[in-house]
Amino acid sequence: MDFELLEELLENRDFFQLKKELSSMQVADIAEFLDELESKMTLLIFRLLPKEKAADVFSYLSSDQQQQICVLVNDQELSQLVDELDFDDKIDLLEEMPANVVKKILKNATETERKLINQFLNYPERSAGSLMTIEFVDLKKEMTVQEALDRIRNLGFNKETIYTCYAINGKRILEGIVELKDLVLSPKDEKIENLMQRDIIFVGTNDDQEEVADLFKKYDLLSVPVVDQEKRLVGIITIDDIVDVIEQENTEDFHRMAALEPSDEAYLSANIFTLARKRIVWLLVLMISATFTGLILSKYEDALQSVVALTFFIPMLMDTGGNAGSQASTLVIRSLTLGEIEFKDLWKVICKEVGVSILVGFTLSVLNFIRIYFLQGYSLGIALTVTITLFCTVMLAKISGGILPIVAKKLKLDPAIMASPLITTIVDTFALMIYFGVASWILGL
Amino acid sequence: MDFELLEELLENRDFFQLKKELSSMQVADIAEFLDELESKMTLLIFRLLPKEKAADVFSYLSSDQQQQICVLVNDQELSQLVDELDFDDKIDLLEEMPANVVKKILKNATETERKLINQFLNYPERSAGSLMTIEFVDLKKEMTVQEALDRIRNLGFNKETIYTCYAINGKRILEGIVELKDLVLSPKDEKIENLMQRDIIFVGTNDDQEEVADLFKKYDLLSVPVVDQEKRLVGIITIDDIVDVIEQENTEDFHRMAALEPSDEAYLSANIFTLARKRIVWLLVLMISATFTGLILSKYEDALQSVVALTFFIPMLMDTGGNAGSQASTLVIRSLTLGEIEFKDLWKVICKEVGVSILVGFTLSVLNFIRIYFLQGYSLGIALTVTITLFCTVMLAKISGGILPIVAKKLKLDPAIMASPLITTIVDTFALMIYFGVASWILGL
Repeated sequence: MDFELLEELLENRDFFQLKKELSSMQVADIAEFLDELESKMTLLIFRLLPKEKAADVFSYLSSDQQQQICVLVNDQELSQLVDELDFDDKIDLLEEMPANVVKKILKNATETERKLINQFLNYPERSAGSLMTIEFVDLKKEMTVQEALDRIRNLGFNKETIYTCYAINGKRILEGIVELKDLVLSPKDEKIENLMQRDIIFVGTNDDQEEVADLFKKYDLLSVPVVDQEKRLVGIITIDDIVDVIEQENTEDFHRMAALEPSDEAYLSANIFTLARKRIVWLLVLMISATFTGLILSKYEDALQSVVALTFFIPMLMDTGGNAGSQASTLVIRSLTLGEIEFKDLWKVICKEVGVSILVGFTLSVLNFIRIYFLQGYSLGIALTVTITLFCTVMLAKISGGILPIVAKKLKLDPAIMASPLITTIVDTFALMIYFGVASWILGL
Repeated sequence: MDFELLEELLENRDFFQLKKELSSMQVADIAEFLDELESKMTLLIFRLLPKEKAADVFSYLSSDQQQQICVLVNDQELSQLVDELDFDDKIDLLEEMPANVVKKILKNATETERKLINQFLNYPERSAGSLMTIEFVDLKKEMTVQEALDRIRNLGFNKETIYTCYAINGKRILEGIVELKDLVLSPKDEKIENLMQRDIIFVGTNDDQEEVADLFKKYDLLSVPVVDQEKRLVGIITIDDIVDVIEQENTEDFHRMAALEPSDEAYLSANIFTLARKRIVWLLVLMISATFTGLILSKYEDALQSVVALTFFIPMLMDTGGNAGSQASTLVIRSLTLGEIEFKDLWKVICKEVGVSILVGFTLSVLNFIRIYFLQGYSLGIALTVTITLFCTVMLAKISGGILPIVAKKLKLDPAIMASPLITTIVDTFALMIYFGVASWILGL
């Protein structure tokens, strides 16, 4: 988006024209513009917006800006704003805000609303319950299409949540779902029970958000009903929230695979102590594991002293082994996440990695031999030692890169921890053992 | 899903009961079941399904099974099947199938249809054009709500593609969009032009799929109109396809960040030559870059010979540097992908990484000093050399891990290439230079 015009109008204090420009803009764009301003200016513009649009814009703002606005507006404005928010946005807001702001927001809530809000705030983080909204259309199967359409009109939700309607019985147990398109395309006196689908995909309030996202992907859903332990319908989850979940879960995997503790906080808004805490644990664990390599080297002190040249190839062998291993582990971890590989495929993965590592290892080793022996003029013994070690390291790296994530998953660990950093450390240790084993054999050390 | 019952019925050849079970199953589940059977059995069950459901199931099958079915069925069955497919699924099928199967499929297509199909097959891979479907509802702004609903009924698309309708003029130029919910909630004689939204988010046929997905994420869209260069409406893209795009783009990033050339092919179905080809290039490039480390070491041959103990810490220093660097680069790459960081934030990133690396580097260095000097009993000179190098390496790694992805993006390169493998190689080289620099200074080598 190009915000230059808006900035100019703001500078010239031409609020009339600014209001006009804003009225034709998408709410997400307005929020993006406001997020870059300081909070007093944000509030100023925010007050130019019609109430309903203001609430929409608010739900797209960063939580920093949301907090600033909540603090700056008076009680009446705040209660109007919060009233206009969709229920799930209201819950998101309450989850993000510090206690004093939450108190200010809840001051004007009715007893019933406060109860409902508390119930929602109690759903575990990353559960279906924490994602759902209560704005859905509930019907009875005895209704006609006409009655159903009237109910939709009366409920008046101004969102895509009306595209799927839910038929429930007297105990609020879900009996069927009916699509708005079927209502529109059917005769007015048709009964809902003749239109509704009875084999329903649903989730429980405590289900993990990643499983919910997998259902959306598998069945191409636009929304899914959420039921409590008594199978009563309590809410629905819509695809727009699932898109966010998918990105969040991917971000987590990226972080875990780089030996970072995952964090929801955006990089720029996290302070350096938080960032450092998320990194230090794994760095320490890996640093301590890497000391094994030092122990191995010190065992071969005499060999290293008599043939110093052996040292020169250690970084190259370690790097190549690490890279070869992380290629395999990344492919396998990603395939596990996408459900393309399961434990029963372990043998197939091993066969593939053996095949690939022979091809790749052979190519790398031959080129390496040419470089060391012919171009750099090292002795045949050293050239052979390095070449054989390289081949074995690539093989070991690729096979363990293929196996370890699958085994981790079987042990109910997150396969993502078996990514580059850990594989590299493991491969390094074994690569050095192979190196000196081969060196003792060929060079007679 | 639990397919035991189905397998039992299949074994007992109880097709009557099998058909009954299948009729209450979701198409995605039936496809999952069929994907695990051999193709003749798949065809057998496939023929038990009602025609429309069969086409739905077919669109969920793996391309291997799709191909088998296309080959096994007779011409008439094939043309019926293909007729029932949604247009975008038809295009996907044609893109995946080998030439002889494509020929078989297109044999019965009309001239107009063949032209349309060819036009779609010509859109660049990963463009908006290749993702869109032609099944959308086009209206005129002069229509009333009643006329619009009639048109929807007449077009009779049995999909979520009717939730957003598009008002076009005589030249098929897009003038506005109107949501089905607004049609349902408005009086029957209201004009479309009074209901339609005029500030429309749209994409061009050649737009990259990643940009399209970003629009869906930013504006919480369910579908987006696609226009050609003359701004004529030619198709729409729906959210279910965008969910697949998001996963595909994430997979690509995972692959690139592990020095793999990205591939659409599933791991288990790719042969070892393809897998090897996707890995060898980067391994070679990185192996050759890693030989710099060997050159540095050979320059310090004398130092290494006189203090062999220096060698023992090389792997630990390299690993820790690599890990510290890839933590920073992964965070920054992911933030760039999600649009949380831009080039203008470069300075903020540098400040953050300097801060974090002081905290992290200090902790690691102190613990390391204690281990080397007090626990392992090395000389103060060596302990100090290793400790100072560790601190500097962590700092260097984190700062370059933070900067390089941002610079890569500025240079129109994919930031993902600046992930762990390349950062590790770069950091290794500099870490060794620091190591021997510090060693010369402290140990007087």
